[in-house]
Amino acid sequence: MVVVMNPGAPEAQIEAVVARLDGYGFGVHRSTGAEHTVLGAIGARPDFDVRHIKVLDGVKDVFRISSPYKLASRDWHPERSTVDVDGVIVGGDEVIVMAGPCSVESEEQIEASAASVARAGARILRGGAYKPRSSPYAFQGLGVEGLRIMREAADRHGLKVVTEVMRPKQIDSVAKYAHIFQIGARNMQNFPLLQEVGKTGMPVLLKRGMSATIEEWLQSAEYILAEDNPNVILCERGIRTYETATRNTLDLSAIPVVKKKSHLPIIADPSHGVGLRDKVMPMARASVAAGADGLMIETHPNPPEALSDGPQSLYFDQFDDLMDQVRRVALAIDRTIAPADLVAA
Amino acid sequence: MVVVMNPGAPEAQIEAVVARLDGYGFGVHRSTGAEHTVLGAIGARPDFDVRHIKVLDGVKDVFRISSPYKLASRDWHPERSTVDVDGVIVGGDEVIVMAGPCSVESEEQIEASAASVARAGARILRGGAYKPRSSPYAFQGLGVEGLRIMREAADRHGLKVVTEVMRPKQIDSVAKYAHIFQIGARNMQNFPLLQEVGKTGMPVLLKRGMSATIEEWLQSAEYILAEDNPNVILCERGIRTYETATRNTLDLSAIPVVKKKSHLPIIADPSHGVGLRDKVMPMARASVAAGADGLMIETHPNPPEALSDGPQSLYFDQFDDLMDQVRRVALAIDRTIAPADLVAA
Amino acid sequence: MVVVMNPGAPEAQIEAVVARLDGYGFGVHRSTGAEHTVLGAIGARPDFDVRHIKVLDGVKDVFRISSPYKLASRDWHPERSTVDVDGVIVGGDEVIVMAGPCSVESEEQIEASAASVARAGARILRGGAYKPRSSPYAFQGLGVEGLRIMREAADRHGLKVVTEVMRPKQIDSVAKYAHIFQIGARNMQNFPLLQEVGKTGMPVLLKRGMSATIEEWLQSAEYILAEDNPNVILCERGIRTYETATRNTLDLSAIPVVKKKSHLPIIADPSHGVGLRDKVMPMARASVAAGADGLMIETHPNPPEALSDGPQSLYFDQFDDLMDQVRRVALAIDRTIAPADLVAA
Amino acid sequence: MVVVMNPGAPEAQIEAVVARLDGYGFGVHRSTGAEHTVLGAIGARPDFDVRHIKVLDGVKDVFRISSPYKLASRDWHPERSTVDVDGVIVGGDEVIVMAGPCSVESEEQIEASAASVARAGARILRGGAYKPRSSPYAFQGLGVEGLRIMREAADRHGLKVVTEVMRPKQIDSVAKYAHIFQIGARNMQNFPLLQEVGKTGMPVLLKRGMSATIEEWLQSAEYILAEDNPNVILCERGIRTYETATRNTLDLSAIPVVKKKSHLPIIADPSHGVGLRDKVMPMARASVAAGADGLMIETHPNPPEALSDGPQSLYFDQFDDLMDQVRRVALAIDRTIAPADLVAA
Repeated sequence: MVVVMNPGAPEAQIEAVVARLDGYGFGVHRSTGAEHTVLGAIGARPDFDVRHIKVLDGVKDVFRISSPYKLASRDWHPERSTVDVDGVIVGGDEVIVMAGPCSVESEEQIEASAASVARAGARILRGGAYKPRSSPYAFQGLGVEGLRIMREAADRHGLKVVTEVMRPKQIDSVAKYAHIFQIGARNMQNFPLLQEVGKTGMPVLLKRGMSATIEEWLQSAEYILAEDNPNVILCERGIRTYETATRNTLDLSAIPVVKKKSHLPIIADPSHGVGLRDKVMPMARASVAAGADGLMIETHPNPPEALSDGPQSLYFDQFDDLMDQVRRVALAIDRTIAPADLVAA
Repeated sequence: MVVVMNPGAPEAQIEAVVARLDGYGFGVHRSTGAEHTVLGAIGARPDFDVRHIKVLDGVKDVFRISSPYKLASRDWHPERSTVDVDGVIVGGDEVIVMAGPCSVESEEQIEASAASVARAGARILRGGAYKPRSSPYAFQGLGVEGLRIMREAADRHGLKVVTEVMRPKQIDSVAKYAHIFQIGARNMQNFPLLQEVGKTGMPVLLKRGMSATIEEWLQSAEYILAEDNPNVILCERGIRTYETATRNTLDLSAIPVVKKKSHLPIIADPSHGVGLRDKVMPMARASVAAGADGLMIETHPNPPEALSDGPQSLYFDQFDDLMDQVRRVALAIDRTIAPADLVAA
Repeated sequence: MVVVMNPGAPEAQIEAVVARLDGYGFGVHRSTGAEHTVLGAIGARPDFDVRHIKVLDGVKDVFRISSPYKLASRDWHPERSTVDVDGVIVGGDEVIVMAGPCSVESEEQIEASAASVARAGARILRGGAYKPRSSPYAFQGLGVEGLRIMREAADRHGLKVVTEVMRPKQIDSVAKYAHIFQIGARNMQNFPLLQEVGKTGMPVLLKRGMSATIEEWLQSAEYILAEDNPNVILCERGIRTYETATRNTLDLSAIPVVKKKSHLPIIADPSHGVGLRDKVMPMARASVAAGADGLMIETHPNPPEALSDGPQSLYFDQFDDLMDQVRRVALAIDRTIAPADLVAA
Repeated sequence: MVVVMNPGAPEAQIEAVVARLDGYGFGVHRSTGAEHTVLGAIGARPDFDVRHIKVLDGVKDVFRISSPYKLASRDWHPERSTVDVDGVIVGGDEVIVMAGPCSVESEEQIEASAASVARAGARILRGGAYKPRSSPYAFQGLGVEGLRIMREAADRHGLKVVTEVMRPKQIDSVAKYAHIFQIGARNMQNFPLLQEVGKTGMPVLLKRGMSATIEEWLQSAEYILAEDNPNVILCERGIRTYETATRNTLDLSAIPVVKKKSHLPIIADPSHGVGLRDKVMPMARASVAAGADGLMIETHPNPPEALSDGPQSLYFDQFDDLMDQVRRVALAIDRTIAPADLVAA
């Protein structure tokens, strides 16, 4: 921590700050500049609230030096990590596509979706069995029955399963059927939930909160990593800004930023990022071009009848076209996407 | 729902939209303007996702007419509501002050806090026994023992208790000791939690999410109200903006906006809104002047040693001064705040 | 400037950074912590772009120590400044109210407005002769004729005049009729304009840009102050956030923040902050309670017929009521507002 | 305009609104739904301030139907426009790259830059002769001498010139040397400037304001188009959000949004969008993948010595590499970028 005193701060103020730092257990190194006295506080305490010092008399500014997270930081883990999802590697050269409907609605819908996305080159089937809905009057999901349906369809088509878990007591059921726990944007700081999925040791897809900074997102990842679970995949899905033309603002620059700060793999979800079907294609291409390690895309056999998020879901033929286009972009930056027939039924 | 077609949209596009609306069960009323054909879709479906129509060919814009919430809306409940917290009325002429430390740390700390805030005119003791912390390495709260300590101190000083509940399985313990469940900003859209606290029928203080619109906030209130629990108190605590000089941006204009849209009482939390002790006083005054029905203020017997949020906690004498000032502002707008000796031990 | 190196940064990287700092003319002070090497760069260069260092290999973070502004900073000017507007003092104990229509439309409109606001206790008449309009098809203002009308009405009622200047070539005309140049939010970073109004030595009301940080705002003030013009009044008028229930989000916490960082007086404009008449009253009260040195309020003899911003303009009787209420709030915090008959015609 | 009345609004309120709409010259069409009476106001007035109706008693909501801009809208001009910059076509299949230093500093610097960017496949030389700087103490540009230097170098290497104009009185000089006027983000709503560049009939590159919505941006374009100048090129350069890891948040979804709403070509400026050299490459690739019609990239012969924006400027070899990569991405989406030797000296 570096503490900058006001220009001309009286000696008594400086000494009071030094004493306080000492009281908090920091070693203090003092240096006197042309205008400002600067105090270096030595001794890493990642959870120290620097505002304790900021409110003292004569203090102009306080800067934190050590990251509030360690395990997620690239400082201590310079090589990039991969997450092995039952044989599908996220974070390697292959850009991994996760696709499927927003909600699990029926056996037929999921079978059709799994067949379609597998044929097009997706590796992982997505779908929600428990749904967070902003209105209490909206469809809330099929629950365990939905999980079972999804897993059976995935197995038939050589896919893995990712699905959202909303509260600790759903963890056991989800663990039984899914390969990846998805933590939704609204739960990015649901700390009890993060700890519990951490304890399972299974892969976790951690979506960025709608108003989370990248630093806070990595701190949430730290909650999972701190449970000795290294299998965290980050997912950029759009942040809230003043612009209302799109549902959220997909922050693709988060991809190179995260890759510099952290070793964890990061994917993008353009469907939630833009919220309207006709913007998904260009933003999926852009996500891959920006360096995403994967994509999460919503598709549906009949989007107008989808029980949730139909308007941002692609028709199957649109998804085929998307896969064709993102595959070409991936090749242009020397990465790959699974070919269209690799895992078809 | 009102659907605006593009200027010059061909008849076939218009008819396709009409057919789709019909398929969704809406009656359709068509009117032809100078430039645009406008379709009125009749038949309220509060949870209908208007993007279903927005993505159709030839559609320029879609506007929702009915609110996505009913019970929270002033449309159907024009007179203002009050919440009776075991005899303390929130939403009446008296501005109710809730004060105390961020976290419960010890019996001594809570006894000193309760005595101090009661003497100064606060009605409700605040304090966290379960703490949401962005870092996994920070203090996580005393749990049930903290709840017991808080209730005993409150009882000794004629105060009620408000405390945060973070997950459904904490509800029973919290219900045993507290008078008001606090739902923190991070959990504003934790829908299972909202439903569970709704079922208790007890008062709920619902903090605004850091990036929640007022509409979304009222929808979250609807989750609680829909469980037949009318006892919802809203709490503005600052939103995330690009400005970093304060921890959050306290959106005081939310107070008159909420009062127009909803009948529910609304209080303000300037401590979290600004995040630094020296800004709490002016913003507490401003909150009352803007029409807040209450204040939530952090105090601590020894802020530099507080285990959480010390830098935004007031010293006891600062709190006394704050109460004196906000009481004067309340009188200037023809409201009251309990006098400094009313409930003292 | 403080430079923090990555943990374990090799000596060669550290030396390269030191050499670069040296090349930029900084003295360098090196200290080695438990995890990080920290370099203090000594020698204030307020305009140095710290990103030059941030992009170097091995650098984790760079913090600026000296403010990017000096003249606006309270560091060097601890006592608060006042601005003397031809005898009306802004920044003293009296809260100064500036009121009048958005646009000057006619002699009758201005005469009625001036009479009304003077009678109610305002000190300064506002009104736009040159209008920035987001649509090219909207009313653009009366120009010099509007300035003349406004000054004559102000003189008849003992008021001063504040009006917006949009481009350097309007300065001479405005200087002839007005007492205060208003720089609108859209021009807060129109640097040639800031320099030219600076050169006049006359009072300048500098509105905060819609997405300006407080730091950037103070840098814009510095442009004026650097022309040897100390007469700068800041005006908070709402910032752009994701919330759309109000036109902007009035950031009242900027008032205590500015008062700590700068010696300049600061007023608030709740009319633009909220954009709808019925929210102006509570936010005007809140502005005074937060410590504003003045208010800017839009009024109009007939708001529904106003050529601009009618919906946020108060009827005269609403303004009378507002003045009565803010006067009571001012007294509650030991400040004053001119009585309702002091300057009446 | 569509006006939605409160549920149960009394007939007198409805009639008052109808009368007011009539007074403003609108035809009114009334329809009665299950809950709400809805009034359609017919007669397009693009500049009508809908808040006039929003503030009336009994009004729940008001929606604007006609766009506040016409000439920029795709509604009336469905085919996409191209801008002919002295033979270089912006908006066609070729993605046009504009590159060069932030500021013109010397003849040598510009000659080296022009040679380098031309050789790599750029078509247009960028560089600032007049610089908007947030600090009054920073380098302010070489003025006319800088313009002359830039044009001569561009001519030697077969490039066109784009440069910023900051105030109307610079227009004549800039017009003499440049092919495209650049309007900077800070001036997006400097309406006098927009009108004056509009009158020249020359191509204008209109950067998006830091907090401008896409609607406001298109309204600013309308200012130029309304002067009978169809040669407007839009440029996304990042918006201000709460995230501080990058200088701005490059909003690439604005590209597909603009392409749906408007016929104007749109390019992206990743250098300003991210503000740090190492993020420019991935975001340049992403911009092309998202459908940008061009790129604006900062390069410098010696970035550490650049007088402005050095940290976001690429070294020449980095720019060569960038051109190679974006060319591959362009091909992957069936577009082109000029080959590396096409226009070399």
